[in-house]
Amino acid sequence: MSDMSETTIFNRIAIIGIGLIGSSISRAIKMNGLVDFVSVTAKSQKSLDTAVSLGIADSVTLNLDEAVKGADIVMICSPMSTYAGIMESIAPNLKTGAILTDVGSVKASVIRDLSPKLPAGVHLVPAHPVSGTEHSGPESGFAELFEGRWCVITPPTGTDQSAVNKIADLWRAVGSNVEFMDPFHHDQVMAMTSHLPHLIAYTIVGTATDLEKSLMNEVIKYSAGGFRDFTRIAASDPTMWRDVMLNNKDAILEMLQRFNEDLTALQRAIRWDEHDTLYEFFLKTRSIRRGVIEANQEKMYE
Amino acid sequence: MSDMSETTIFNRIAIIGIGLIGSSISRAIKMNGLVDFVSVTAKSQKSLDTAVSLGIADSVTLNLDEAVKGADIVMICSPMSTYAGIMESIAPNLKTGAILTDVGSVKASVIRDLSPKLPAGVHLVPAHPVSGTEHSGPESGFAELFEGRWCVITPPTGTDQSAVNKIADLWRAVGSNVEFMDPFHHDQVMAMTSHLPHLIAYTIVGTATDLEKSLMNEVIKYSAGGFRDFTRIAASDPTMWRDVMLNNKDAILEMLQRFNEDLTALQRAIRWDEHDTLYEFFLKTRSIRRGVIEANQEKMYE
Repeated sequence: MSDMSETTIFNRIAIIGIGLIGSSISRAIKMNGLVDFVSVTAKSQKSLDTAVSLGIADSVTLNLDEAVKGADIVMICSPMSTYAGIMESIAPNLKTGAILTDVGSVKASVIRDLSPKLPAGVHLVPAHPVSGTEHSGPESGFAELFEGRWCVITPPTGTDQSAVNKIADLWRAVGSNVEFMDPFHHDQVMAMTSHLPHLIAYTIVGTATDLEKSLMNEVIKYSAGGFRDFTRIAASDPTMWRDVMLNNKDAILEMLQRFNEDLTALQRAIRWDEHDTLYEFFLKTRSIRRGVIEANQEKMYE
Repeated sequence: MSDMSETTIFNRIAIIGIGLIGSSISRAIKMNGLVDFVSVTAKSQKSLDTAVSLGIADSVTLNLDEAVKGADIVMICSPMSTYAGIMESIAPNLKTGAILTDVGSVKASVIRDLSPKLPAGVHLVPAHPVSGTEHSGPESGFAELFEGRWCVITPPTGTDQSAVNKIADLWRAVGSNVEFMDPFHHDQVMAMTSHLPHLIAYTIVGTATDLEKSLMNEVIKYSAGGFRDFTRIAASDPTMWRDVMLNNKDAILEMLQRFNEDLTALQRAIRWDEHDTLYEFFLKTRSIRRGVIEANQEKMYE
């Protein structure tokens, strides 16, 4: 790694949680020389040991308060259900002028959980890197995870613009395309693009799990027929996804209601042999696929 | 292409329908020199012209009866809703000792539609190559489509074993792994591995299609979050999938009912903040993923 200290964006970052995203951003920061000093904290010593052995932390500690002391930027990369407790603990230790950010998949709830204890002079700039894999844990991370992917930043109204710019600079420096969005709008978009698809995939794989053993083994054997794509999505981290479902409840329940109405209509069409209804429905979904390919998402994933 | 006529399995094949599967099997037969003469028929002259220009047919005709005359094997590769009509037409023209086969995704209904008019001395050996892409039409085919994929053969009770063996030989010769199954059992397995996943994918993409235009554009933009995988499945051929849903109605409605019960339980768990229910459900689906990866399906697709 070359000495890039002249181009660093921050002097000291504290990364709270070192799973797939936390360890990936640590790696990307190290690889690109974006921050002078990376302090890592996590709930388990095992994760910290892994971070050390991977060479992605300049210091590690189980102590939250110690980790954030003196940091210019504190990035929460733990499950969203831990945010309020973390904030309670770290608030008195945040440096004036520091930026507090995160990587959670829901944004309105993050602002709800972090704002109340936010000390004066600390800037809250929530962000959501729209990237990930079905794997979890510090070993699963890689520096290129964010390359060519979106990072959506959702600053609350009135947030200091230079703080927002610095977070945007960080994500651009690890290869992401940055967009800004209202947090509630972000949550609505993600309910449809990500949260409902995950809920549906978990459900269908769960339904298969309950089949009699011999039938389930055949489902696995012939899974390339379509089911397999769902198993990948449904292998994602259960804690993270439980938190997503509970923290974006309203938007997800709304989209799920629409989905249920459509599914019931198709179920009825199958039962009553409505050829044309089925054909028309199956035809209209093709145009969205073209949109997805044109939006160049196809080659950006895996 | 080398002269492999000594190793051909059949003298003359008639392929009815030249879409993704029909054109792929034609190519694979040509590439491997498995049949001496390939006769192709389709509903449109345009498809036949394409078959000629691709060099995958020794003769083409719009006339069904002409196509099957003198064929040792007749393979139906058209949508399943056309089977009964095709059988009505070709039955008097099938050669004694000929094998009638197909590539449909549902098997009990195929036997229902083809058996009644089956002439004495003609062997019915239905088959299902578990392979495909989201593309359709003769240009989309490729000779390697069946390599390393399953082909499930579902002969009715009492079918001539040498006829069954010849169909198995053909599929093995194009690279497939052959399995034999009871047609009703096949349909039950496929309802879960393929038909329900397609129905669900079509539904969720349809739900997104109905969103207001600006929100839908954002759903497309951020589709890598999970939605994108569903758009690929939901871009599959609408005629084929309408026929699948209607011809495997009972098994699909049964699996759909189980799916609905599970989804309703999760919906309730989200609404009432049942952390543990969600966590346990999202955890149990991980083990199936391991089974899928061990079953080596992962690298066999695309």
